[in-house]
Amino acid sequence: MHNTLGTVFQLTTYGASHGQAIGGIVTGCPAGIELDLEFIQKELDRRKPGQSKITTQRKEADEVLFLSGIFEGKTTGTPIAFQIENTNTRSKDYSHIKTVFRPSHADFTYQKKYGIRDYRGGGRSSARETANWVVAGAIAKQIISKMTINAFTSSVGSIFIDKPYQALDFSKTESNIVRCPDSDTAGKMIARIEEIKKQGDTVGGTVTCVIKNVPVGLGEPVFNKLHAALGQAMLSINAVKGFEYGSGFCGAKMTGSAHNDLFNADGTTKSNLSGGIQGGISNGMDIYFRVAFKPVATLMQEQETIDEAGNIVKMQGKGRHDPCVVPRAVVIVESLAAMVMADFSLLNKLTKI
Amino acid sequence: MHNTLGTVFQLTTYGASHGQAIGGIVTGCPAGIELDLEFIQKELDRRKPGQSKITTQRKEADEVLFLSGIFEGKTTGTPIAFQIENTNTRSKDYSHIKTVFRPSHADFTYQKKYGIRDYRGGGRSSARETANWVVAGAIAKQIISKMTINAFTSSVGSIFIDKPYQALDFSKTESNIVRCPDSDTAGKMIARIEEIKKQGDTVGGTVTCVIKNVPVGLGEPVFNKLHAALGQAMLSINAVKGFEYGSGFCGAKMTGSAHNDLFNADGTTKSNLSGGIQGGISNGMDIYFRVAFKPVATLMQEQETIDEAGNIVKMQGKGRHDPCVVPRAVVIVESLAAMVMADFSLLNKLTKI
Amino acid sequence: MHNTLGTVFQLTTYGASHGQAIGGIVTGCPAGIELDLEFIQKELDRRKPGQSKITTQRKEADEVLFLSGIFEGKTTGTPIAFQIENTNTRSKDYSHIKTVFRPSHADFTYQKKYGIRDYRGGGRSSARETANWVVAGAIAKQIISKMTINAFTSSVGSIFIDKPYQALDFSKTESNIVRCPDSDTAGKMIARIEEIKKQGDTVGGTVTCVIKNVPVGLGEPVFNKLHAALGQAMLSINAVKGFEYGSGFCGAKMTGSAHNDLFNADGTTKSNLSGGIQGGISNGMDIYFRVAFKPVATLMQEQETIDEAGNIVKMQGKGRHDPCVVPRAVVIVESLAAMVMADFSLLNKLTKI
Amino acid sequence: MHNTLGTVFQLTTYGASHGQAIGGIVTGCPAGIELDLEFIQKELDRRKPGQSKITTQRKEADEVLFLSGIFEGKTTGTPIAFQIENTNTRSKDYSHIKTVFRPSHADFTYQKKYGIRDYRGGGRSSARETANWVVAGAIAKQIISKMTINAFTSSVGSIFIDKPYQALDFSKTESNIVRCPDSDTAGKMIARIEEIKKQGDTVGGTVTCVIKNVPVGLGEPVFNKLHAALGQAMLSINAVKGFEYGSGFCGAKMTGSAHNDLFNADGTTKSNLSGGIQGGISNGMDIYFRVAFKPVATLMQEQETIDEAGNIVKMQGKGRHDPCVVPRAVVIVESLAAMVMADFSLLNKLTKI
Repeated sequence: MHNTLGTVFQLTTYGASHGQAIGGIVTGCPAGIELDLEFIQKELDRRKPGQSKITTQRKEADEVLFLSGIFEGKTTGTPIAFQIENTNTRSKDYSHIKTVFRPSHADFTYQKKYGIRDYRGGGRSSARETANWVVAGAIAKQIISKMTINAFTSSVGSIFIDKPYQALDFSKTESNIVRCPDSDTAGKMIARIEEIKKQGDTVGGTVTCVIKNVPVGLGEPVFNKLHAALGQAMLSINAVKGFEYGSGFCGAKMTGSAHNDLFNADGTTKSNLSGGIQGGISNGMDIYFRVAFKPVATLMQEQETIDEAGNIVKMQGKGRHDPCVVPRAVVIVESLAAMVMADFSLLNKLTKI
Repeated sequence: MHNTLGTVFQLTTYGASHGQAIGGIVTGCPAGIELDLEFIQKELDRRKPGQSKITTQRKEADEVLFLSGIFEGKTTGTPIAFQIENTNTRSKDYSHIKTVFRPSHADFTYQKKYGIRDYRGGGRSSARETANWVVAGAIAKQIISKMTINAFTSSVGSIFIDKPYQALDFSKTESNIVRCPDSDTAGKMIARIEEIKKQGDTVGGTVTCVIKNVPVGLGEPVFNKLHAALGQAMLSINAVKGFEYGSGFCGAKMTGSAHNDLFNADGTTKSNLSGGIQGGISNGMDIYFRVAFKPVATLMQEQETIDEAGNIVKMQGKGRHDPCVVPRAVVIVESLAAMVMADFSLLNKLTKI
Repeated sequence: MHNTLGTVFQLTTYGASHGQAIGGIVTGCPAGIELDLEFIQKELDRRKPGQSKITTQRKEADEVLFLSGIFEGKTTGTPIAFQIENTNTRSKDYSHIKTVFRPSHADFTYQKKYGIRDYRGGGRSSARETANWVVAGAIAKQIISKMTINAFTSSVGSIFIDKPYQALDFSKTESNIVRCPDSDTAGKMIARIEEIKKQGDTVGGTVTCVIKNVPVGLGEPVFNKLHAALGQAMLSINAVKGFEYGSGFCGAKMTGSAHNDLFNADGTTKSNLSGGIQGGISNGMDIYFRVAFKPVATLMQEQETIDEAGNIVKMQGKGRHDPCVVPRAVVIVESLAAMVMADFSLLNKLTKI
Repeated sequence: MHNTLGTVFQLTTYGASHGQAIGGIVTGCPAGIELDLEFIQKELDRRKPGQSKITTQRKEADEVLFLSGIFEGKTTGTPIAFQIENTNTRSKDYSHIKTVFRPSHADFTYQKKYGIRDYRGGGRSSARETANWVVAGAIAKQIISKMTINAFTSSVGSIFIDKPYQALDFSKTESNIVRCPDSDTAGKMIARIEEIKKQGDTVGGTVTCVIKNVPVGLGEPVFNKLHAALGQAMLSINAVKGFEYGSGFCGAKMTGSAHNDLFNADGTTKSNLSGGIQGGISNGMDIYFRVAFKPVATLMQEQETIDEAGNIVKMQGKGRHDPCVVPRAVVIVESLAAMVMADFSLLNKLTKI
């Protein structure tokens, strides 16, 4: 029950970063959808390591193979299983952490919880898992093809885009390696990441996501509110520390008279500080939210930590790691958002007879 | 499925603010627990309206009645049903909104989604629902009695506590009507709310929650991470716009070398910027998180809005409403946190044979 | 999770036979359905004790009270809570079993599992719970009003209806107290039950259920097959020992050439030994199935049994009990069938976009 | 949600008989269990086609490959993914049914429900799916290694074992190709199947399953009773038409004085007509139940049927099919029983703190 996301459109996943493969099963995908498999692979390519000088140099082919659920190009309504081989695993890169707990990683908690862990590359706790989500998200995008989902890097460290999302041209997001649609800010972000990388350090950032053309009525009160489901999904991403939608934490500083989102005669609203959701249900306006990522915990600097016996030991990151996870996270955020929106689109068919 | 919170310790609720009653069924509560029913009522009293000059003057008895699941003072392992009568409902206060959509409320979205709505007091979308959560939370607290859960008002509008939580004395939270353990800040917050109230306006704020004495190992990767479940629960509260834990959004600005939460020899960590959770699993350190509440949408000022026919109409809040929801939300945050922690405590019994 | 039936149309229940009330919450009922509440009460009256000389003389008012989810006569899409007071509980009738385990009852297993039990009237294990199911079933019937669901007593002890169901007139089921649509057989059944009752003994029987006007396509392979869901529901009824559909156990003796259910040109089938379901999905033909009930375990004869200390003791049924449960079970079988069919009707909306 | 069995120990499956592979993901398997992978393969070999002259001559390698969840021979508490390649698919054997609906198969219902179907070998509706269940069942058996689960062929057509199960020696079940522990009856069954096969016909039968060494307390009232879960699982097997446990349908003919299962002083019972379960909870006695299988629908005789256009056409089974499914079903019944028992063993850890 813990390895499944969604209520109707469901993804159940498996896999550790250094096992034979990762993969998943998508159930609840409606029958008769013509799936563009090339698009799914392209989405996966957006996530894969080694794309640019600011991401890990680890090369993973990340080719997705579908095993079921598609017949003559269309979904059959039966489970869609897929798998991605782990081809370029350098497990020996991890032998130094076999008995060592890396700071701010899940080594310690997995070991204590389960009494056993696959220490290679973080095992099940590795962000490699998110490749599975991108596959399912790329399927979900094809179910809700009328909506558009655009995520982008909105900050790296202290460098923020200082414009509202409405002023951005999302077609430029993929035009630079940091996936920031504002080219000036993108330049500064890239410079910052390169600087951080040189220091063997890492840096955090935020991803903002905007969903347009959302029909009114998606969301299921009271414990399956649309924004709560989006939040739960985003908080599942490795390294995420916060989620806000609409006015978010800023809204908590405002007065009601400034914050209230007044109606136009046609039912649209004026400020959309609501973030497209009222009472947990979409109101037809743009949904937008922001996700906070902490800096990657693996440093190319020496750090002190402990081993299983409780000895203080020194360690330094080996392997190939991202100095900033945010650019690659953009497609992950979009994918989870697509899964949630597809799920709630289907759920809403149950509202009336 | 949308009116249930939790996986093992589950609460399923019903009720609208102006129906006959609200209530719920708690399933999955272990057998043999001696329940302190008086404590449950006291928790409910912390939430109820009319407690002070800065909350709504609406008086609700909010007496909880248990109908099943308890025998000779102990839980029997069967469903615990409870109900709270709606005694002081002034439904005529709401006749003016029968065909009007209040701004930043759920009137519009419920009507569009369901084609029908109980307009009195917001119906199912009313925060009255949270009384149910307090009952279940007060049961949950008795399951995990070794943990302590302390929430408090950490900001009202722009007035923030400027100390880390470690410097606060939680025994003082209940000593003032705004439920802020720092008395100086509390005074400023109360003054601010009174000022806002005079203007017929409202103001937002944040609640911070700290959970101590958490065992290592609670949390279920990958889609039921402890912080994701906490986030999902908190985002279910009416008016919540954001959730962050540990370093939160600030963490996104930091470098890895500053952010990493280094181990002590005994497995505790030095900074706890992790917020007591690593890889979705508790590490034994304090769990702390922050929840952002928007300002209450019902104003005692005239606002423009629309009716069902799309006419622009003027309206002004009637009834009895809170100028700031945060003080009463403190116990709601604690209750949901308790439910999540009880649920994950039980779930963790399944980890090993 | 164990007190809930259904996937979309869900009933969650609570209550013990001698607590204050029993009741439940129906979630997932679509919005906008005009509910006939009088019909629901009438269904409940079909189940209630004291209806005739062959049922228990215990009188229970069994009046259902609705607390939420219905507004101006229509469902709102929010949870429908209901409750039935326990008005005529003679708990002292049960003081003799406080420390005694009745044979073929759940006293022993509840005590061993939970370490505590409400011994009065069987507590949670009492068939009183089924009153909740009748309420939910009567709601479900109004969702799937185009289907007709007819259950009836098909055997009592060794007395069987010796006609196929197609030869029966279901309008006569309610014309006699044993609820057998064949009046000759009904007479024999009643005589047999009266005889058994005089002996202080009880007798088992079977209920057959026929569902007509079922659309093609209901049922969700592979672990939510329509007949598996019907079977799971029926096996939840107190005293049920077996379930078969279509050709059932007889089918196991047949050859394929005799058993195969050949098609007519219009897609209907010739023999319907399939029982209206093929591969777990309805094929549009009548669904029919049979449910086996053991004899009631409470006898008005002396029996040997044991107490909690392991002493052999003698006991005799007190209170007011049915000599044969089957006539009152007819409406329970129908109700569960209705819940399952309503649930799968809704689920089938998710099959295609 | 429809492709998953179990609540805690869960199997989610995928695959069609002529796709690239079938497989599944087991979640909720506790950490730290040393898995005997050879045993799993042996169980799979018991199910595979081509074992004897009375089963299909189709040869399938049915080699299971594990992809995750096992590290250094032990379960890690993370999802166990496995897959079985479809190596010997003769899809052209099925080209004759591309547009034809086979009688008593799922072709018609899948086509009508989904609007599309993989017609080759029945696609998702193929019993090939049950190979997945055997893998998961063989894992489950290792979780509940103290229980013993023995299923066997108890009837073929009208040939029944005429002894109670207590008189049988289960160590002989595998000593003959029909998997009947009574060698005389086995001989008659085999002769009957050979005769039927010569006629191009098929025959039904029953499988009985006995579970010993069950602890008291497994089972979750009221909608997750142990026997209801066993029934739901068994009714998921292709071709199953009925399920009964303990006294079953015979019990419906009995009187209470004959049927009641009196206690011995030690809490064991005398007749065990209860079938090891009282009130949905195991009482520590043997659990036994019987499952009815209809005759295989694919005949090597000419039959009339219809095509998608509604034309009457003649068809005859091609490919390689079983004349009687029961001998191969024995291991499937055991596997599902093991999954249910493992699931409920884990669930029972949640009963008390």
